[in-house]
Amino acid sequence: MTIQSFIPPQRTLMGPGPSDVSPRVLSALARPTVGHLDPTFVGMMDEVKSLLQYAFQTQNPYTMAISAPGSAGMEACFVNLVSPGDTVVVCRNGVFGARMIENVNRIGAKTVVVDGTWGRAVDPQALEDALKQTPEAKFVAFVHAETSTGALSDAKTLCEIARKHNCLTIVDAVTSLGGVELRVDEWGIDAVYSGSQKCLSCVPGLSPVSFSEQAAQVIKNRDSAVQSWFLDQSLVMEYWSGQGKRSYHHTAPVNSLYALHESLLALLNETLEKSWTRHREQHNKLAAGFEDLGINFIVPEQERLPQLNAVYIPQGIDDVKVRQLLLNEYNLEIGAGLGQFAGNAWRIGLMGYAARSENVALCLAALKEVLAP
Amino acid sequence: MTIQSFIPPQRTLMGPGPSDVSPRVLSALARPTVGHLDPTFVGMMDEVKSLLQYAFQTQNPYTMAISAPGSAGMEACFVNLVSPGDTVVVCRNGVFGARMIENVNRIGAKTVVVDGTWGRAVDPQALEDALKQTPEAKFVAFVHAETSTGALSDAKTLCEIARKHNCLTIVDAVTSLGGVELRVDEWGIDAVYSGSQKCLSCVPGLSPVSFSEQAAQVIKNRDSAVQSWFLDQSLVMEYWSGQGKRSYHHTAPVNSLYALHESLLALLNETLEKSWTRHREQHNKLAAGFEDLGINFIVPEQERLPQLNAVYIPQGIDDVKVRQLLLNEYNLEIGAGLGQFAGNAWRIGLMGYAARSENVALCLAALKEVLAP
Repeated sequence: MTIQSFIPPQRTLMGPGPSDVSPRVLSALARPTVGHLDPTFVGMMDEVKSLLQYAFQTQNPYTMAISAPGSAGMEACFVNLVSPGDTVVVCRNGVFGARMIENVNRIGAKTVVVDGTWGRAVDPQALEDALKQTPEAKFVAFVHAETSTGALSDAKTLCEIARKHNCLTIVDAVTSLGGVELRVDEWGIDAVYSGSQKCLSCVPGLSPVSFSEQAAQVIKNRDSAVQSWFLDQSLVMEYWSGQGKRSYHHTAPVNSLYALHESLLALLNETLEKSWTRHREQHNKLAAGFEDLGINFIVPEQERLPQLNAVYIPQGIDDVKVRQLLLNEYNLEIGAGLGQFAGNAWRIGLMGYAARSENVALCLAALKEVLAP
Repeated sequence: MTIQSFIPPQRTLMGPGPSDVSPRVLSALARPTVGHLDPTFVGMMDEVKSLLQYAFQTQNPYTMAISAPGSAGMEACFVNLVSPGDTVVVCRNGVFGARMIENVNRIGAKTVVVDGTWGRAVDPQALEDALKQTPEAKFVAFVHAETSTGALSDAKTLCEIARKHNCLTIVDAVTSLGGVELRVDEWGIDAVYSGSQKCLSCVPGLSPVSFSEQAAQVIKNRDSAVQSWFLDQSLVMEYWSGQGKRSYHHTAPVNSLYALHESLLALLNETLEKSWTRHREQHNKLAAGFEDLGINFIVPEQERLPQLNAVYIPQGIDDVKVRQLLLNEYNLEIGAGLGQFAGNAWRIGLMGYAARSENVALCLAALKEVLAP
């Protein structure tokens, strides 16, 4: 074999994630590895927990980072809370709502699907109607920010409706955390998961999660063991809860957690409010530029995610060729369409460290050149 | 909150893992993040696959790295191969054999346990006897290198016995891969998992796995869906098999895979045989030093893992105090006992990049000073 060290190109990452990782986070990532039971590392994990509580706007003691990507975070929320035979109302308005249904099915639980239009927010009235007809429902699950369509749903209202019908809520905040307003405690979210590689601009591979006290009680009072040993939060919770002795469960991804610590610290220093504003302002500049270029958004203005801009590919334009030109000539990555939008949409991310004026300027200038007849 | 950037101390890691990560691997880890669908990254993943095939000594096309720690690799092997109602013979001679049983139980499959002495290799005759009494058994599972006890089992012989009884084998090679002889194809192992943070000396968080053609057929012909969506290898296999279009499953841990690529490349350059010899030679030096210090091994000489030295704590010595002194005064981490050996053993790792003369010298000198009356 003639294999050499891999030297990646320096890209600008404006797809659906991973987003640009800042030099300060990459630098933290490469610090010397210590043992996962090292007192200094245990102290750092406590800080990660506090920083995640800030990012999620929660006081939940059961706030931690799953040692695997966002899809494992999703699975952790479902397999820990939902037992075989339970009924879960799942709102589906994109790829990730559909994946939630997969998770429920594999538990042997029952799904009631609230189908919505791709590219639109979840309709609160449709959820309300479904819950009225499903008195046995125990959980409501929905995606706050649909990465596949760029639509932002009204998590606060959806949680209110769920609570009115005595359901706990499971919320996908993979793309929303750090990019748009998200208030776990104030909105009464019971289980929430996210990803490290979106608006936190950390490297991919970790999934921040948080469970309310009520959710934690459900986990503690289960009749049957959680079907996944690796994701069994009753085994992991004590490790992160800071109460008593930490017992060995698995080897934490030490260096990735250094990077998460640093990216969360950057968010704390900026403040959440300023981060949300920055994402909105950069989105506005990008949207104005798209208008000049005759590029149209899929999602109506009031339901748009600033950090994930899903747009229709202009008539007569070769999707793959444009994305290849952007990547090869400008080192600029934008995302392809996914699911229903495969082949007819682009997804342009402005996530975390990528939500900067220079990125917006590059993207608009490069697109203008590449799309020129 | 007054949180600052985390600057870890520079430790020498001679516990049960993570092991010392070399500067060249840390440097690879910190290279700029690219998209997980970037053509350059896809090419690198093909190389990781080839490098893992070399490390495992296999031609299996279904060879890949699970995007989560070794315990998720264990779970991936079990939940993909074993269906509810199947019978699995599990050899238990330490903590990780016990964890295999947990995995089988959570699938709703039946376990037949072959119990062995902690600190000893698995007894082939005991396996043979159990299989004779369990004609319905479909799988045999055992740990090649028990990290909790330092015992090395004869994987080749155990696989022969399993094959004679028409069972597929599931083998834990978390601590063995790269440190002692392991020949997946020649020995006829059907499913094997490892960890990145042991003798590969990569950062923790990834689990290399490999499935034989027969194991892949079992996965493809399942009656029921794999209970874990995240670990469902029928969804992941095509992504890594190099056949046809890679479809999106989850976002790969890009930077961690840079590091794995680099650590596997270092192993290829050294060659497996020289790595095995190096581990053995450093172990011999450490063992000679222990004899001088009056420190006794738990495992009989012929069954000892060179890379994981489990020893009895000398009479009258305070376990915690010694390990704290080593850590605080010498920046040297050694491991505590686990399971049956908690409180009465130390586990001293010589794994991968940590299996160097300077580490052995430091460990012996520091122990001598700390243990001096």
